Amino acid sequence: MKLRVCIVGGSGHYGYVLESLSDEFDIVAVSPGVVGENLAPLLSKFKQACMDPRLYEDYRQMLKSERPDVVVINTHFYMNGKILLQALQMGIHAFVEKPIATNLEDLHQIEKIYSEVKDKVFFAAMFGLRYKPWFLTAKNLVDSNAVGEIRLIHAQKSYKLGERPEFFRKRETFGGTLAWVGIHAIDWIHWISNKRFVSVYGLHSRMANKNHGELEATGACLFELEQEVIATLTVDYLRPPGAETHDDDRLRIVGTEGILEVRDQSVLLTDEDGTRVVQNQEQGYIFKDFLNHVLGRGRCMVTAEQSIYATYIALKAREAADERRIVTL
Amino acid sequence: MKLRVCIVGGSGHYGYVLESLSDEFDIVAVSPGVVGENLAPLLSKFKQACMDPRLYEDYRQMLKSERPDVVVINTHFYMNGKILLQALQMGIHAFVEKPIATNLEDLHQIEKIYSEVKDKVFFAAMFGLRYKPWFLTAKNLVDSNAVGEIRLIHAQKSYKLGERPEFFRKRETFGGTLAWVGIHAIDWIHWISNKRFVSVYGLHSRMANKNHGELEATGACLFELEQEVIATLTVDYLRPPGAETHDDDRLRIVGTEGILEVRDQSVLLTDEDGTRVVQNQEQGYIFKDFLNHVLGRGRCMVTAEQSIYATYIALKAREAADERRIVTL
Repeated sequence: MKLRVCIVGGSGHYGYVLESLSDEFDIVAVSPGVVGENLAPLLSKFKQACMDPRLYEDYRQMLKSERPDVVVINTHFYMNGKILLQALQMGIHAFVEKPIATNLEDLHQIEKIYSEVKDKVFFAAMFGLRYKPWFLTAKNLVDSNAVGEIRLIHAQKSYKLGERPEFFRKRETFGGTLAWVGIHAIDWIHWISNKRFVSVYGLHSRMANKNHGELEATGACLFELEQEVIATLTVDYLRPPGAETHDDDRLRIVGTEGILEVRDQSVLLTDEDGTRVVQNQEQGYIFKDFLNHVLGRGRCMVTAEQSIYATYIALKAREAADERRIVTL
Repeated sequence: MKLRVCIVGGSGHYGYVLESLSDEFDIVAVSPGVVGENLAPLLSKFKQACMDPRLYEDYRQMLKSERPDVVVINTHFYMNGKILLQALQMGIHAFVEKPIATNLEDLHQIEKIYSEVKDKVFFAAMFGLRYKPWFLTAKNLVDSNAVGEIRLIHAQKSYKLGERPEFFRKRETFGGTLAWVGIHAIDWIHWISNKRFVSVYGLHSRMANKNHGELEATGACLFELEQEVIATLTVDYLRPPGAETHDDDRLRIVGTEGILEVRDQSVLLTDEDGTRVVQNQEQGYIFKDFLNHVLGRGRCMVTAEQSIYATYIALKAREAADERRIVTL
């Protein structure tokens, strides 16, 4: 029996679903998550793929009528958490955009409801970058003790800004750059080091955001993790339009026995044998991994607990930057 | 008439002097800066170069007897500032190890005395890394507006630890890793951006320092600069012994029109035309530049004011990390 999937919104990473189309699931229906959301790009992709899901005007109506097995949530960011909460309450598995909430109140409610339903319902945030060959390779190297004990981490997120939709320009609807972009780096740090965060200090600035209202063009955090592990993170939307790729993701992990770096889609390892490029693993597929979990065939590499935790840290990092103070975690 | 140069100590970067030997100066005498300082490597270099400066047991005696034009100060770090102070009081130009003091009291005294004698006496800290081809190239690119307005900076210092002398293992005599190593990155940030620091938060840790007592093996800072410019810095002594070079210096400068990176002794520029390696300028020579200043032939690229300022910021960064608080600058 095929899984029945609904999609709410077309403002995030629904591409993770479209890259994993298979005969294990049908996309039965789609709706906006907020009134007036632009679904044109998503609907055009459906057309190209000769798919014709039902179109609802209201996601609540859709979820009630369709009672899908899975809902994919990627609408304007401030609504993702509120819709996730309803999905969990209805017992529907959810594949949800990160951050899974843009304020702590929504996050706490999600955490509470999830703790009550977690034996029956699963959800995971769209931390699809983990599945890139270079990050999988980095994770496996660290797990196989290639750098010894981790002591210092630096993570970089750099994006082209281009022209973003209107809802990116309001903190209320966008959530902030540390929460939307920085969260990936927060997830890498926690996922790869397996360490918990102790405190965070942050800064961000809206200057040079090319008329993007409240969107922060730059930001940085300094984290303390367990065992005095130190981590820094920078985010920027200043990658020049002429750059070869949209993003410039980097990660440097300094351990007692070696230093590992992700840059230019490669992994470099420096240890007693010098520096070398490590052969990349194969690309993974987050939605396939998510579905396997839902189908009881394995554990998704992104857990609901990690999705909650990374969101919590990202929102606290934003709070630190907003209030210019060290926030204890 | 040749300038007469004395050297106090052999525990720092006297190499900058030896790389710039010329017929413009004579090294007339040398002494330890503290009792028992190991001068063997320095004396062996003199022997190789067929030089035979007088050897004093006490630097005060040497400065009084020789009345040199210039003193090069690079003894155990905690003494450099105290000796600089005496040199300034005696009207002797000084080429001094960075940080120019390891505590704020010494620094304030230096600042005070210097303000009184600066029309007659000059000093500069050993920020010789500025003269590396890649940093000169980066500086010139920024000055010629290659990245537009700077918004975000990340700097990295990574060193092999090896086996350090005993005085590195005590905060009192070493000064701390942010002050000894991090100061270079602080200097790059200020020198290249031409911005002043507004605040600093820092962390550092002694864990994994391979029996080096109080020496911090890792550290990081998050700075706010004028106009909401954000800068991060990491330092570590965990570069593996097998790495090709002793250090792994990096600098990433994100501007409104481009992103510039120093890494692997090269400069990469990303702008509207994509990413490319920029041809490196020629190596510069800090001691030669210093002597030209003393001889009235030009201005040294490292000023006394910058030497004071970078030391101040480094000591405040250490204070932030020691006390785990945000320090206003």
